[in-house]
Amino acid sequence: MALKKKPVTGMKDILPAEMAVREYVMNQIRETYGGFGFNSIETPCVEHIENLTSKQGGDNEKLIFKIMKRGDKLRLDTAETENDLADSGLRYDLTVPLCRYYSNNAATLPVPFKALQMGSVWRADKPQRGRFRQFVQCDIDILGDPTRLAEIELILATTTLLGKVGFKGYHVRINDRNILKGMASYCGFPEESFDQVFIILDKMDKIGMEGVAAELLEAGYEKEKIDQYLALFGSVTPDAAGVRSLGETLKDVMDPEMTENLAAIMDSVNSIATSQFDIIFDPTLVRGMSYYTGTIYEIQVDGFPGSVGGGGRYDKMIGKFTGMETPACGFSIGFERIITILMEEGFTVPGSTEKKAFLIEKGVSADVMTAAIQEAMDERAKGVCVLVSQMNKNKKFQKENLQKEGYTEFKEFYREALK
Amino acid sequence: MALKKKPVTGMKDILPAEMAVREYVMNQIRETYGGFGFNSIETPCVEHIENLTSKQGGDNEKLIFKIMKRGDKLRLDTAETENDLADSGLRYDLTVPLCRYYSNNAATLPVPFKALQMGSVWRADKPQRGRFRQFVQCDIDILGDPTRLAEIELILATTTLLGKVGFKGYHVRINDRNILKGMASYCGFPEESFDQVFIILDKMDKIGMEGVAAELLEAGYEKEKIDQYLALFGSVTPDAAGVRSLGETLKDVMDPEMTENLAAIMDSVNSIATSQFDIIFDPTLVRGMSYYTGTIYEIQVDGFPGSVGGGGRYDKMIGKFTGMETPACGFSIGFERIITILMEEGFTVPGSTEKKAFLIEKGVSADVMTAAIQEAMDERAKGVCVLVSQMNKNKKFQKENLQKEGYTEFKEFYREALK
Repeated sequence: MALKKKPVTGMKDILPAEMAVREYVMNQIRETYGGFGFNSIETPCVEHIENLTSKQGGDNEKLIFKIMKRGDKLRLDTAETENDLADSGLRYDLTVPLCRYYSNNAATLPVPFKALQMGSVWRADKPQRGRFRQFVQCDIDILGDPTRLAEIELILATTTLLGKVGFKGYHVRINDRNILKGMASYCGFPEESFDQVFIILDKMDKIGMEGVAAELLEAGYEKEKIDQYLALFGSVTPDAAGVRSLGETLKDVMDPEMTENLAAIMDSVNSIATSQFDIIFDPTLVRGMSYYTGTIYEIQVDGFPGSVGGGGRYDKMIGKFTGMETPACGFSIGFERIITILMEEGFTVPGSTEKKAFLIEKGVSADVMTAAIQEAMDERAKGVCVLVSQMNKNKKFQKENLQKEGYTEFKEFYREALK
Repeated sequence: MALKKKPVTGMKDILPAEMAVREYVMNQIRETYGGFGFNSIETPCVEHIENLTSKQGGDNEKLIFKIMKRGDKLRLDTAETENDLADSGLRYDLTVPLCRYYSNNAATLPVPFKALQMGSVWRADKPQRGRFRQFVQCDIDILGDPTRLAEIELILATTTLLGKVGFKGYHVRINDRNILKGMASYCGFPEESFDQVFIILDKMDKIGMEGVAAELLEAGYEKEKIDQYLALFGSVTPDAAGVRSLGETLKDVMDPEMTENLAAIMDSVNSIATSQFDIIFDPTLVRGMSYYTGTIYEIQVDGFPGSVGGGGRYDKMIGKFTGMETPACGFSIGFERIITILMEEGFTVPGSTEKKAFLIEKGVSADVMTAAIQEAMDERAKGVCVLVSQMNKNKKFQKENLQKEGYTEFKEFYREALK
């Protein structure tokens, strides 16, 4: 029977050249985040269907690859809906499994706990260019720290990493869910309208200030409120001073400690970070997931649409799941996005080892073959990569291809060596 | 809603201590196999259901985690069997996906192609101690080399790796499917009985020579044939000379080039390998998978039951799948087995970086916090791991726990520093 040769829809085979870049970046991630005291952990790719459909995953819950029950538990005759047939599914993010992991293992984990996760997640999204149904996420999370030390460390770790893999000219946009609410509240929007207002505000990047105004008007909000709201955004400077001044304005509707906290995060990051990025207060930053409770942030790289990473504080989520209230804060980098950018820019893995190829003619004696392999082993022991390969009929073509793979030295072993 | 805290049945959460060992071993694997010219590749974890049920996977095909169709394609009303509901499944090994990968990408891959795969596979096996339903496999394969150079390189790469992670006193048992057949043929067993005879022979480890004799008798074979067969096993010495002498005996039923090939592999490995292992000719070695066509091998470690790795030549499999006849040979190491052994032996990751912990009292000023983080960043830039953490109320307990995690130096930052 012939195999289906293509991967399943929306997933991809990874070729050696891309794998080399992926492994390099993964090593940089482990090394950099390891230096900040993050511990690598891993959860199974398969998760209980109940955990995946607990309303914490937002729209991702519609995109689950569900796994069928097996054996006697699969009852086709009595099944009425697909949920009667599935007992588990592939994880669509690393946050829900992290919450389960933490509640399962809290007794043996340090407090606070700094977790690093790198792993594949699956979403049955509509396949489109550059977006895949299996992709790697890379998350760092600090569980159990209610203070801004968590945010500062997460931002410094992530930007240090981006600097190491060569990113420059990017911006960390930062905001706080409480400021979002405070601004809406200050302008007279009722609390029950916040979700709708923020969904519209979130389109600022795409439709601009005027578009947002039009949509708010269409949604039935009073022009006066809208004007005041948008004027407030216009009046804010994108730095810590802007945050503090906004805090002064909002002091009747929100605790000034909240704005001071955000301003202090920005001060600290600005004073410490040596690399090439700006941290920008962006009061229009919303971020989709409903579980965020405080600081939120996102990274934009000049010249590339969308974000290469983001995250925020989600102090209520673990408690909701487990009954143990646990402050939590995370930063997820867009691993696949970073790889795509590096591949497009023709990134080459730095400091690769020396590569030699030994080509062995067909039919050499056992002694010649053994001698060639022995020589290869001696070189390998010194850290050189040595490929020992059959010599192909078209040796010139073979060598050209090997040169493209980074082999710089060749040695040939012939039958003639016998004589 | 409360989460289910435990992982799904038969799968496990991996704690930081085990992750550190796993990552260390994975790095050794990449480095060692990379030095032999193997290229890392990756296939999706999800594979077409047709490919997974194409009869190449043996009993593993009964253990597939099947993934349900989605959207309009899922037709509960007309589905008669579970196969009407599934369009894909989780891979149960890395060999079937490798064949698909090779046929999909052969045009862009080097010839011969040396592939390294490390990845999770899933089998819905009965859960039991130490055996999990998600586990990592690590395979190296050489595609397109019909000569023994492939076997020699695979054995040297694998044993070099085992040496690097500290294994000693192990044996590589080696045999050839053709010798298995030759011996059975020589003693008068008809070809159609080979599968049954080899299944019984494969129990030698467990039931011994007498047990094998009894089962063959019970299966209806003549005592005379059985006696001759078992006497032949008894007469063979476990070295290259034994292989050659057996070749002499079997010269009427098999091409002596086949035994010479195996003997030459053993000679070459023996003359090159510097590390602490024996290569042993074991004519009773069968290995289960039916796709092997030539050399087969397995690694046993003294004091640990079962094998820590195995493989062989499977020259027909890729051709059967793709229509392109391609010689192939592989070696799979038991990654999880190796991790279990290392964890049991209290293995510690060598050469870990220096680890310091900075503890920050609750309520320090922004300046003190920033200064502490700045100092941590300076140390990190020098390669030191620095954890910056809130100081817990029970500081002594916190430090003891951090010491268990390998933190050797502590520095404390207090509110008092303000004054």
